[in-house]
Amino acid sequence: MKVINGSIIAPRGFKAYGLRAGIKPGKTNKDMAVILSDKDAVCAGAYTRNRVKAAPVIWDKKVTDRGTARAVIINSGIANACTGERGYDDTSKTAQILAGLIDSEKEKILVASTGVIGANLPMEVIEKGANMLVPLADNTEEAADLAAEAIMTTDTHSKKIAVEFELVGKTVRMGGMCKGSGMIHPNMGTMLSFITTDAVISHEMLDKALKEDVENTYNMVSVDGDTSTNDTVVVIANGMAENAKITSENQDYEVFCAALNFVNEYLAKQIAADGEGATKLLEVKVQNAVSPEDAKILAKSVITSNLTKAAVFGRDANWGRILCALGYSGGEFEPDKTEIALKSSNGELVIVKNGVGTGYSEDLATQILSADEVTVSVDLHGGAFSATAWGCDLTYDYVKINADYRS
Amino acid sequence: MKVINGSIIAPRGFKAYGLRAGIKPGKTNKDMAVILSDKDAVCAGAYTRNRVKAAPVIWDKKVTDRGTARAVIINSGIANACTGERGYDDTSKTAQILAGLIDSEKEKILVASTGVIGANLPMEVIEKGANMLVPLADNTEEAADLAAEAIMTTDTHSKKIAVEFELVGKTVRMGGMCKGSGMIHPNMGTMLSFITTDAVISHEMLDKALKEDVENTYNMVSVDGDTSTNDTVVVIANGMAENAKITSENQDYEVFCAALNFVNEYLAKQIAADGEGATKLLEVKVQNAVSPEDAKILAKSVITSNLTKAAVFGRDANWGRILCALGYSGGEFEPDKTEIALKSSNGELVIVKNGVGTGYSEDLATQILSADEVTVSVDLHGGAFSATAWGCDLTYDYVKINADYRS
Repeated sequence: MKVINGSIIAPRGFKAYGLRAGIKPGKTNKDMAVILSDKDAVCAGAYTRNRVKAAPVIWDKKVTDRGTARAVIINSGIANACTGERGYDDTSKTAQILAGLIDSEKEKILVASTGVIGANLPMEVIEKGANMLVPLADNTEEAADLAAEAIMTTDTHSKKIAVEFELVGKTVRMGGMCKGSGMIHPNMGTMLSFITTDAVISHEMLDKALKEDVENTYNMVSVDGDTSTNDTVVVIANGMAENAKITSENQDYEVFCAALNFVNEYLAKQIAADGEGATKLLEVKVQNAVSPEDAKILAKSVITSNLTKAAVFGRDANWGRILCALGYSGGEFEPDKTEIALKSSNGELVIVKNGVGTGYSEDLATQILSADEVTVSVDLHGGAFSATAWGCDLTYDYVKINADYRS
Repeated sequence: MKVINGSIIAPRGFKAYGLRAGIKPGKTNKDMAVILSDKDAVCAGAYTRNRVKAAPVIWDKKVTDRGTARAVIINSGIANACTGERGYDDTSKTAQILAGLIDSEKEKILVASTGVIGANLPMEVIEKGANMLVPLADNTEEAADLAAEAIMTTDTHSKKIAVEFELVGKTVRMGGMCKGSGMIHPNMGTMLSFITTDAVISHEMLDKALKEDVENTYNMVSVDGDTSTNDTVVVIANGMAENAKITSENQDYEVFCAALNFVNEYLAKQIAADGEGATKLLEVKVQNAVSPEDAKILAKSVITSNLTKAAVFGRDANWGRILCALGYSGGEFEPDKTEIALKSSNGELVIVKNGVGTGYSEDLATQILSADEVTVSVDLHGGAFSATAWGCDLTYDYVKINADYRS
């Protein structure tokens, strides 16, 4: 497997575009994008578990349950969440508009929205935007980049990746783009991720591959099972690589899953590192837990601890807060056996052994915490299971962004 | 029942004092306090559920399980948490020192610590402090005030209250002081609360009264059952009011519980309003939930939502975030029936009906949110159960305090 250019249009038979239709305030912010497949594709989705679900989430779930998609249409600026029946009608109408323009059926159109909750979509602007997007959609890297920019909200940069890998006798490609941010109390920041591939795979296997992988990637971005009203990950596979169709957990399936994991983990880490106001990517690795579930619970508890995140921002090796976050997580572990180390490109340092501080050099700890990517490694010396979670530091800018978001 | 002066020394037979022994950096911060009872008192405690428990918590649990206390000794500056065997020995030694000075047994001395995790207590300073405190301890309001100041860490003011109430034929008093702060990811801020009373009550009934009440007071301060390494609430009842001993759930017990609830709720709200960097007290009332547990889960989810708290700081009536926090809580409710109102001394406004925004005046909403105390009232129109949680807004100063705490 190798990383290639092109993101979502790297696989055969995909076009994309992004532009400003006029949903967001201001005059320059892009706010609509499309991804078009040349032919009907198999699709799968994973969605927010929030009891309050935005209209496009309810819509897309039906599309991915049926399993066939031709295109995705996305808007940023307005989330179309908490908008009742009118919201659902607007999503359906959006699908209808795009379907008409590409000679498809609205039941095959995925729709995604992100932005302010509670506002209605300006349907005339959506229609105008769709009409502009379809003729401009192209299979160039530039077009894909515009799409990745158009789905951003408080993201500071667009997030995209593509890979190429071999299934028996055939070269297959997979691309992805996503938007995140708003990560501090993580289950609130809307995360949208769109994966394209030209692999031939059954709906059942694609669904299985995606659902299993999100648990180790997006759901470990300082997010627990609880998520925002709009969180959506969809994969569309148009089969144009002409590999032998994956219909069971064979070797091709394993390779496909590895590629999907690489793409999803890359995007998940990009989301974490670009959390609102973040200055660095924080990674928490929990090792030797007594069960996979305990490993995840413990890793997530540290990554979501505001006190730990604020300490990392302050370059303060406050191991007490880390141990405390492990302690209140509900996960099984023995404090007296716990070892904690800090790692980054600036060095590595064990700061806790057997549950107490090691009397390490604070200067070296501060130096390690000054890097752009910092890993907190927790060894529980309990069992054989591990988990990794990703997040970011908590900064003044987070408060600024979220105190002023709607104004 | 009426509010009276004197806080912890208002009940008969209690003395207190607070002073600077030299545990905290700087030269002026007070850091040690004592509460002394003239005679052995019945005692009860409620403690952190964190798997990582500080030495004084382990010690005090044994004292309150036995049920008899003569005094409390408290230090701020160092939490004596994650300090292993040496930490426990230091707590035991602290109890021994005070016991020697007041002619009691160390098994009857409650010990509490708050401050930095992982550091050891300077035992010479503790011994010196105890030696200074005992002769100075007095039953004046000034002495009680010094004690309330000496237990503070990042608190901006001391927190205290006292009440007087009637049990059959006797006037009984109850006083309390506490420290909190560090409330944003709430289960981290160490909360210490000390309640004194001259009521005559059995160990069993005092224990029952306290354990039930903390669930509706301290544990609703944007704290769930999971708490910091040091959280402690103790009540000591020295019986000097000479009322008929409370040994069952009779009417006197009900009155006693009402007084305890008044004192605890007052102190809990003081803690919430003085959360690190907070500019206002936020109260979340959930009404008409289908069960008491769901009401609590839903109220706590809103009070702990960073996005909601940052919006309140920004005076932004972002009801989408409130609805979203209800949605990911795991509590049972129907979004389509949900009503949300904002209330303060500046007015009252329904901002959500049937799960969607009401098209209210943003100006009025901002005005309501500008008050020092704001209530978010959620009516679920589902069942007959309610719960109230308390917290504060999320501000720049929170980040500042917690990025710099140890430096």
